[in-house]
Amino acid sequence: MNIRLNENFARIKPSYLFSDVAKRVRAYSEANPDKKILRLGIGDVTLPLTATVIRAMHKATDEMANAATFRGYAPEYGYDFLREAVTRHYASFGVTIAPDDVFISDGAKSDLGNFVDLFADVPVLVPDPVYPVYVDSNLMAGREIEYMEGNEGNGFLPTPAGLSDTPRLIYLCSPNNPTGAVYPAAGLAEWVEFALRTGSLILFDSAYEAFISDGSPRSIYAIKGAEKCAVEFCSLSKTAGFTGTRCGWTIVPAALGAVKPMWERRQATKFNGVPYVVQRAAEAALSPEGMAECMANIAYYKENAALIAELLKKKDIPFTGGLSSPYLWLRCPGGMGSWEFFDKLLNEAQVVGTPGAGFGRAGEGYFRLTAFGSRENTREAVQRLDELL
Amino acid sequence: MNIRLNENFARIKPSYLFSDVAKRVRAYSEANPDKKILRLGIGDVTLPLTATVIRAMHKATDEMANAATFRGYAPEYGYDFLREAVTRHYASFGVTIAPDDVFISDGAKSDLGNFVDLFADVPVLVPDPVYPVYVDSNLMAGREIEYMEGNEGNGFLPTPAGLSDTPRLIYLCSPNNPTGAVYPAAGLAEWVEFALRTGSLILFDSAYEAFISDGSPRSIYAIKGAEKCAVEFCSLSKTAGFTGTRCGWTIVPAALGAVKPMWERRQATKFNGVPYVVQRAAEAALSPEGMAECMANIAYYKENAALIAELLKKKDIPFTGGLSSPYLWLRCPGGMGSWEFFDKLLNEAQVVGTPGAGFGRAGEGYFRLTAFGSRENTREAVQRLDELL
Repeated sequence: MNIRLNENFARIKPSYLFSDVAKRVRAYSEANPDKKILRLGIGDVTLPLTATVIRAMHKATDEMANAATFRGYAPEYGYDFLREAVTRHYASFGVTIAPDDVFISDGAKSDLGNFVDLFADVPVLVPDPVYPVYVDSNLMAGREIEYMEGNEGNGFLPTPAGLSDTPRLIYLCSPNNPTGAVYPAAGLAEWVEFALRTGSLILFDSAYEAFISDGSPRSIYAIKGAEKCAVEFCSLSKTAGFTGTRCGWTIVPAALGAVKPMWERRQATKFNGVPYVVQRAAEAALSPEGMAECMANIAYYKENAALIAELLKKKDIPFTGGLSSPYLWLRCPGGMGSWEFFDKLLNEAQVVGTPGAGFGRAGEGYFRLTAFGSRENTREAVQRLDELL
Repeated sequence: MNIRLNENFARIKPSYLFSDVAKRVRAYSEANPDKKILRLGIGDVTLPLTATVIRAMHKATDEMANAATFRGYAPEYGYDFLREAVTRHYASFGVTIAPDDVFISDGAKSDLGNFVDLFADVPVLVPDPVYPVYVDSNLMAGREIEYMEGNEGNGFLPTPAGLSDTPRLIYLCSPNNPTGAVYPAAGLAEWVEFALRTGSLILFDSAYEAFISDGSPRSIYAIKGAEKCAVEFCSLSKTAGFTGTRCGWTIVPAALGAVKPMWERRQATKFNGVPYVVQRAAEAALSPEGMAECMANIAYYKENAALIAELLKKKDIPFTGGLSSPYLWLRCPGGMGSWEFFDKLLNEAQVVGTPGAGFGRAGEGYFRLTAFGSRENTREAVQRLDELL
């Protein structure tokens, strides 16, 4: 083949984070087949879909079995019933969204990756540490990345202070993956003010909004003026356990002008909608009954997080997250590096976490634990760490 | 907002094909509320999902209801059970594919659109008329398009004869949407030979392969050497009625070298897999029992096509397709333009089709009818057309 490839793909260092983790765990496991390994590393849910969601999926499946109720191609931006359910979800915490500004998708990851198609070669500002998709999808498009460091000094919540006035694409993730840090309203308002003043566009990832219980905004649109400078990406993956069911949405306000029709065009050209049964499942998850069940599951995960947080406090290990997030982000004790600490936990307590270095340069020396395990495993892991640390 | 937009989006003329069709139908319908309109225009299936598929979806839904069998994030390129089911499907018509070269997706449209991310600004060769996604997704990426005309002279099957040796991305669609024309083995072999000689890459859209009954290849990989010069996009949308269920696949052979790891990287970064219940539904559709049911549905649609074909022959209207395709592509009688004929059928017989001009410049003067309606409606439409033409 003699076609010129997109050489920007070579700019992405293959990230072996989770496969390296898996490799080390496998090697340990093979050498120590009698040891029980406890996984607090992966950001995937473990509780099943809720009863309301399951009922809706069975019902929708039955509809697909009969010509009279069968559904072919879905409307490209989502069924009205689901776009409206999303606006009711926002209304439940006081945020007004027009159904027409809601774009149903197969998850935040796809939309975060695809949204950058809409822009020319513009400057991009990304927190560090953060979910690697923001960086990788822009590197693939040939853009340069400017990083803003999260650290203990700023509570892992970078601010616009000191930034030049260049208009940028600005990624914000709150509650943050991996640090669990959550922007209060004042922190988000600073970003909205900066974006409006400089003509920047905020790409706001609110995938963990349902975990917020400290009164912080669950949407960037809780901030006045955000509809003129922000797009929001959300997902049911963590809210409703949809990691294997795949449904999310992107809010593109009409007030953004040309951006909305461009996203409509992008989706109409390169996307064919979300499965009908999944859209009905998502509608059910967002119903009052479904959301009550989701919140019960989230409470369960947050009780796990509280157990881990309690231990970290007892051991005087600085950390963020755990209160309004399924993630706990801790400073590795004794000045250890991320991978060094990983090996110590694996070898000496058979507990698997995620090295912070995998989320950006500023993550080195930190470590992520997640609350998505079972209560039993979380308790046992906490006990082992209590003995080890 | 002051971010530079991707100005290539402005190169796409908003295609109002189907919305224009809908608008004219609505206007007619409002002016003539007593008239029954018969739709032979839209390329969407109408028969429900088959019993085997429905059973698999219910079973998978039940698995999602229990922690012990619940599935979170799927493997990024698809579950092994489905990748292997796809290879067995190819084996059923004599084509060998490695499961590892199969990438499960939410449909051919997404993958066709996203695949061009992998290349630099390379020349692109597209048939005309054809499915508009090939053109639009390349225009959005800033590429120039070279068209190759399908016409009655070449049976709407363009050949490489006369092309320069420049390496290109070459789109082929067989059975073709909208013309229903199918490349015989010799025609595909010419393209493979051309691609191998010039270092071109063929992007082969086989979404309608299950309709082939004239012995033509159902995959580009039926042609020797194709694994070194072709990627294949396929879908269950038309094979199994999955237009609202969303599952397809892309074959990226390891023999293509750098292309496969690039696609892996693209999908790992910007895609999070297909819902578990949908992958189980797809596996069921590809099982021997499921495929027998799918082929019965396809036979039903092809009987509709045969009724339309019979009329066109009786009226001496030249056409392609209908035998190995759900589409019939006819020359508008009396030298009428595509939209002129559309209006005539709507106003005088209340039959809705699709103007060929919507599929490219070379489609002007042609018209697409589809076999996806019910038998009853197809019969009635044929009778009305018999009286009108």
